Amino acid sequence: MLGYGSQTSQSERDWEKKFRDGIVPANIRENMQRLSARPHHVGSPYDKDNAEWILGKFKEWGFDAHIETFDVLFPTPKQRVVELLEPTKFTAKLQEPPLSVDPTSNQTAEQLPTYNAYSIDGDVTGPLVYVNFGNREDYEQLDRMGVSVKGAIVIARYGGGWRGVKPKVAAEHGAIGCIIYSDPRNDGYYEGDDYPGGGWRPRFGVQRGSVMDTDYPGDPLTPGVGATPDAKRLAIKDAKTITKIPVLPISYGDAQPLLAALKGEVAPDAWRGGLPITYHVGPGPAKVHLKVESNWDLKPLYDVIAMLHGTDDQHWVLRGNHHDAWVNGAEDPISGQAALLEEARMFGELHREGWTPKRTIVYCAWDGEEPGLLGSVEWVETHVDELKQRAVAYINSDSNSRGFLFTGGTQDLESFVSGVARDVQDPETKMSVFERSHLHSIANARNAEERKDVRKRHDLDVRALGDGSDYTAFQDFAGISTLNLGFGGEEDGTQYHSVYDDFYWYTHFVDTDFIYGRALAQTIGSAVMRLADADLIPLDYAPQAETIEKYEGELEKLLKDKQEEFTERNLELQEGVFRAINDPRRPAVPPPVEAVPPYMNFAPMKNALEALKKSSDRYSKDLSKWQAEGGPSESQKMESLNEDLLKVSRLFLNEKGLPERPWFKNQIYAPGAYTGYGAKPIAAVREYMDEKKWKEAEGQVPQVAQVIENVAASIDKCADDLEALAAPQQ
Amino acid sequence: MLGYGSQTSQSERDWEKKFRDGIVPANIRENMQRLSARPHHVGSPYDKDNAEWILGKFKEWGFDAHIETFDVLFPTPKQRVVELLEPTKFTAKLQEPPLSVDPTSNQTAEQLPTYNAYSIDGDVTGPLVYVNFGNREDYEQLDRMGVSVKGAIVIARYGGGWRGVKPKVAAEHGAIGCIIYSDPRNDGYYEGDDYPGGGWRPRFGVQRGSVMDTDYPGDPLTPGVGATPDAKRLAIKDAKTITKIPVLPISYGDAQPLLAALKGEVAPDAWRGGLPITYHVGPGPAKVHLKVESNWDLKPLYDVIAMLHGTDDQHWVLRGNHHDAWVNGAEDPISGQAALLEEARMFGELHREGWTPKRTIVYCAWDGEEPGLLGSVEWVETHVDELKQRAVAYINSDSNSRGFLFTGGTQDLESFVSGVARDVQDPETKMSVFERSHLHSIANARNAEERKDVRKRHDLDVRALGDGSDYTAFQDFAGISTLNLGFGGEEDGTQYHSVYDDFYWYTHFVDTDFIYGRALAQTIGSAVMRLADADLIPLDYAPQAETIEKYEGELEKLLKDKQEEFTERNLELQEGVFRAINDPRRPAVPPPVEAVPPYMNFAPMKNALEALKKSSDRYSKDLSKWQAEGGPSESQKMESLNEDLLKVSRLFLNEKGLPERPWFKNQIYAPGAYTGYGAKPIAAVREYMDEKKWKEAEGQVPQVAQVIENVAASIDKCADDLEALAAPQQ
Repeated sequence: MLGYGSQTSQSERDWEKKFRDGIVPANIRENMQRLSARPHHVGSPYDKDNAEWILGKFKEWGFDAHIETFDVLFPTPKQRVVELLEPTKFTAKLQEPPLSVDPTSNQTAEQLPTYNAYSIDGDVTGPLVYVNFGNREDYEQLDRMGVSVKGAIVIARYGGGWRGVKPKVAAEHGAIGCIIYSDPRNDGYYEGDDYPGGGWRPRFGVQRGSVMDTDYPGDPLTPGVGATPDAKRLAIKDAKTITKIPVLPISYGDAQPLLAALKGEVAPDAWRGGLPITYHVGPGPAKVHLKVESNWDLKPLYDVIAMLHGTDDQHWVLRGNHHDAWVNGAEDPISGQAALLEEARMFGELHREGWTPKRTIVYCAWDGEEPGLLGSVEWVETHVDELKQRAVAYINSDSNSRGFLFTGGTQDLESFVSGVARDVQDPETKMSVFERSHLHSIANARNAEERKDVRKRHDLDVRALGDGSDYTAFQDFAGISTLNLGFGGEEDGTQYHSVYDDFYWYTHFVDTDFIYGRALAQTIGSAVMRLADADLIPLDYAPQAETIEKYEGELEKLLKDKQEEFTERNLELQEGVFRAINDPRRPAVPPPVEAVPPYMNFAPMKNALEALKKSSDRYSKDLSKWQAEGGPSESQKMESLNEDLLKVSRLFLNEKGLPERPWFKNQIYAPGAYTGYGAKPIAAVREYMDEKKWKEAEGQVPQVAQVIENVAASIDKCADDLEALAAPQQ
Repeated sequence: MLGYGSQTSQSERDWEKKFRDGIVPANIRENMQRLSARPHHVGSPYDKDNAEWILGKFKEWGFDAHIETFDVLFPTPKQRVVELLEPTKFTAKLQEPPLSVDPTSNQTAEQLPTYNAYSIDGDVTGPLVYVNFGNREDYEQLDRMGVSVKGAIVIARYGGGWRGVKPKVAAEHGAIGCIIYSDPRNDGYYEGDDYPGGGWRPRFGVQRGSVMDTDYPGDPLTPGVGATPDAKRLAIKDAKTITKIPVLPISYGDAQPLLAALKGEVAPDAWRGGLPITYHVGPGPAKVHLKVESNWDLKPLYDVIAMLHGTDDQHWVLRGNHHDAWVNGAEDPISGQAALLEEARMFGELHREGWTPKRTIVYCAWDGEEPGLLGSVEWVETHVDELKQRAVAYINSDSNSRGFLFTGGTQDLESFVSGVARDVQDPETKMSVFERSHLHSIANARNAEERKDVRKRHDLDVRALGDGSDYTAFQDFAGISTLNLGFGGEEDGTQYHSVYDDFYWYTHFVDTDFIYGRALAQTIGSAVMRLADADLIPLDYAPQAETIEKYEGELEKLLKDKQEEFTERNLELQEGVFRAINDPRRPAVPPPVEAVPPYMNFAPMKNALEALKKSSDRYSKDLSKWQAEGGPSESQKMESLNEDLLKVSRLFLNEKGLPERPWFKNQIYAPGAYTGYGAKPIAAVREYMDEKKWKEAEGQVPQVAQVIENVAASIDKCADDLEALAAPQQ
């Protein structure tokens, strides 16, 4: 057991087993039923009611709990219009109909209308253009087809990345409005029977969601600081993260008449969805009117913070899940929140039975995640100095489903979380969740080489995180080691951000008997206990060093690929390939000649990585030795080593932040400016490369190298400490 | 100019130029309008009328022409029923509605109903199962899902190979009936606007077609011999190529209610089509009644054979295209037939102006291609001995569209046809059709390696042919060098085997101004002239040797892939991967343990290939030298060399034929028993490998090697002859 001496590990095992045995699916079900009983978005009565109920529960279970409040900008819609004006008239419903079998779907008075939060107000009319997912590559394709969106309203389908990228890129290309719809190909009957017959999104189901820009998460008016009453606030017009053009989401029932009215070229094969129409790109003859107007008041956030004090109250293990939803949010976020509460209940139980964690456990039920990670970001911004001193790690969850354990985060916790996963049983197969996830990776490997890698690996694959949930501020702003855990891969549909994501739907089509809610609570609760109680904070840097080396290799490969791609393209232009394949009935514009990227100097980063691998291998070996020797400890040295370990991950930060996104301080882990959810490791270099700014990209290499060197040095320091411990003077 | 001496090439160039300049698109248009004016399937009045009109034309242009008649089994439907009995009632229309804009679509009295020829009569009722394309892999997938088709009626979508494979494999798995439908994903609105707004298949459009088994093509009652009046005929019940279960084709309009009534597991992603439903596999609850009853009379075939006698009347250059259609058949086959006739007209013109081909040119307008290559097969079977003596090559065409020249055939003609394609201008880009096709191959290469190969290659890529059109008997039964040429790749839809494949549709959505009809006539006409007039028959064996070596390499790769696949699968079974990924809501049966294939001895074939490469390289060099020296010729030696060259391709035959398909004599070129259209080079070995009969496959290697050695020796003989010519004794 990583970080445990022979004296402490047995007791830990016993307590953990008691913990896991005590988790009751029926409690998780009850938690969900209570919390998802009414719509509970930011600013709604039931959002506050839930926070207070959660607070009461934590207190009941013996936690030292309170609610922390922030005031944030959260627009809610006043007027929404999507109309087809030409060649025929059609007015979009913009409404999710109540279903008789679904008892909460008719709570229309409390439901937030279908909309995209942080859309700017606007009233626009123009020709329609279909832009596929609305990513930058899609506009390159439109260029090839000779189609411009200047002055047009674009219609993009959900998927292919963070929804906020769609209006951002559309505006950059001159569009005046943006409609986003759920295509049944990705999210509807194509995937499976639709609700309520099956679990998939029905004809008039709509995905709400934030389209806040990705410059920084959290309250748009208080970047970098907590949205406390006395915080200095930007004027709304100066908030960079509000969209440049109006946006609304619609159902595929509403989208079909708009798409069917498009002419122009037939959309490329990869762009076509599951509607029974020929997908054309336009522009027009469809002419569309789009209007959005919001109420721009500040709204209160209620973060519930609950501590179970450890014997060492100076160090914190944090665990969080948000409680706010777009509507009833049974899956998102209550499936995670309900498990979190069951963990807390059992901790209270264990505490009464005599267990006290070594380090303090901090449970967080965040408000305002949906609009833009508001609750967690404002809280971390407010407490960042204290967190940097105290936080051992942050473990997040959000929606939970069925199937395989997915692990995201920082790989200094990879060995640790793999150890935890070995001790939790998968409820369906009865193998450990570790084994099931590991074998799933073998099954899903894309080729023999990947399969070989997976088989060689003793650990789960901890994937780098972007900014999809409340871990963002911990990892990217505060440099705290992070895990994000959840089960998935056996879905029978999704009602993501719809009124139908409710208790009836979840208990009919998702984790109906809450055995994966139990597995989630067992996994995360065990991880929290094990982190809190360890003699030595159970970080192992070797997997992280290996992963960062892989990220560096990806940069080199990206450069090589681009060199080859542009060389090939230029040759083909010269040979006349594009002239040869041009069909005069659907003329294509040849792609532009591209300057072939110069070679870049990655040497500083590679040298730094050598140092990192050396120090992390050394620390890993020392750790094994320490464990093999039964974990000799001398409390003062141990304390200082733990203090040092805690700080290693802080050194990934550079206070200046990323070149064009200063809020994001972490130089290894970051979301992409144009992917959002998706991680872009080593973003300072990689994003300039994506922009074909090769010189600027190269210019970032030394500072990233410096960060890696600092981390390497601090790990060496830990190894010094550990060697001193492991071989006490005799 | 390959095969031409300096004295003859200029005159050839002049005549060819005159030929190409004389081809008139308007004539091709007129030919199409006449021939597609009424339905003209086998046995119909207009089929005979067309044959007589074609005969008259050939005679008018100075050809020595006649009609050759055969009597063949060709069933036509008397009764057809497809009904959904449960859970709701629905009766399929089985009817393509006339369209007011389309003037021939209402010739319902003469149209063949929608059906699959050579379906056995039957009247069956059973639960429905969706089987994707109905290939063997699809049934492996169904096994994994625990779904059996025993006693069921299967519904398969068109595509993924020859339609006749669908009922064959269904019957092998115990199905009692087979319905085949056109899914809009592959053949309808998903691809583009449907007819008559666009060119794609409309809701009630149906693909007719033969489902004759692939044991042998041609008349089911006279395998291996011509269906002449005195031929010995099998009883119908003994005809192996009639299906084992009844089959009918339907439209997607008729298919949708059937598919929508299926429950059971959701079909795998790759199986789902473009209908706005969730695709389930069943079985049931849909219960279907299928009935087919045909008139099993013999019907007459009218092959039109027209000769333009050369100065050397002992050797023939053959050129063919069928004239029968399923209905009006503007594209299939009249787009090719109309070009063929325009070639013949110009040959008559040149002949009047003083040109006489060296070798005799034989133009063939085949009847009965659609039911099963009947006209060409019966003719070749009747004349096989004479053909083996006389045939230099056979050039085929069938449907013609727009875009890029596609070349199939035997690669001994690869250098030759590339030379021809360099001399024909592409009407859209004004580059040569060679260059356009070559650049298209660069654009379509799947990776950098393939692109490199294409760039290195001086020639077009002549693909191995299976059995999709009238070249089959020439190549596979008679061992004649073959080309199949056509333009395509810029389609605006297809009405393949539908009433809507007519003059109105073709002239609105395909080659509207017949400039690709002209390009086809120019390409094939030039090829025919150049083959007929050459001093030395323009065969070059180096590309063929290289290609056969590639085919051999594919066998070795297939073995290696199967070894790796089964080793991996068995390992995963042992590791528990399939247990780990099993979702209890959609339980999957693990695949069976497979014996890992043993290593096979390919050495005899590799040794033979070394000999083939050596002899063909030698002949290529000799040929270059001969051409460089201006083509010295000594008529007697020349004649004997040409005689030898003519016979090389015959040596690919083995009179015993393929192990389980004795009609197919060619040991290198053959269709697959389970692919039909698609070629399976070196089928004797490869098909046993597909069956996992490794020992039997290995057992075929020596005889294939022997065939290759014989070919190599005969090429060496040609090289001897040529060296004697090129270096005449001084």
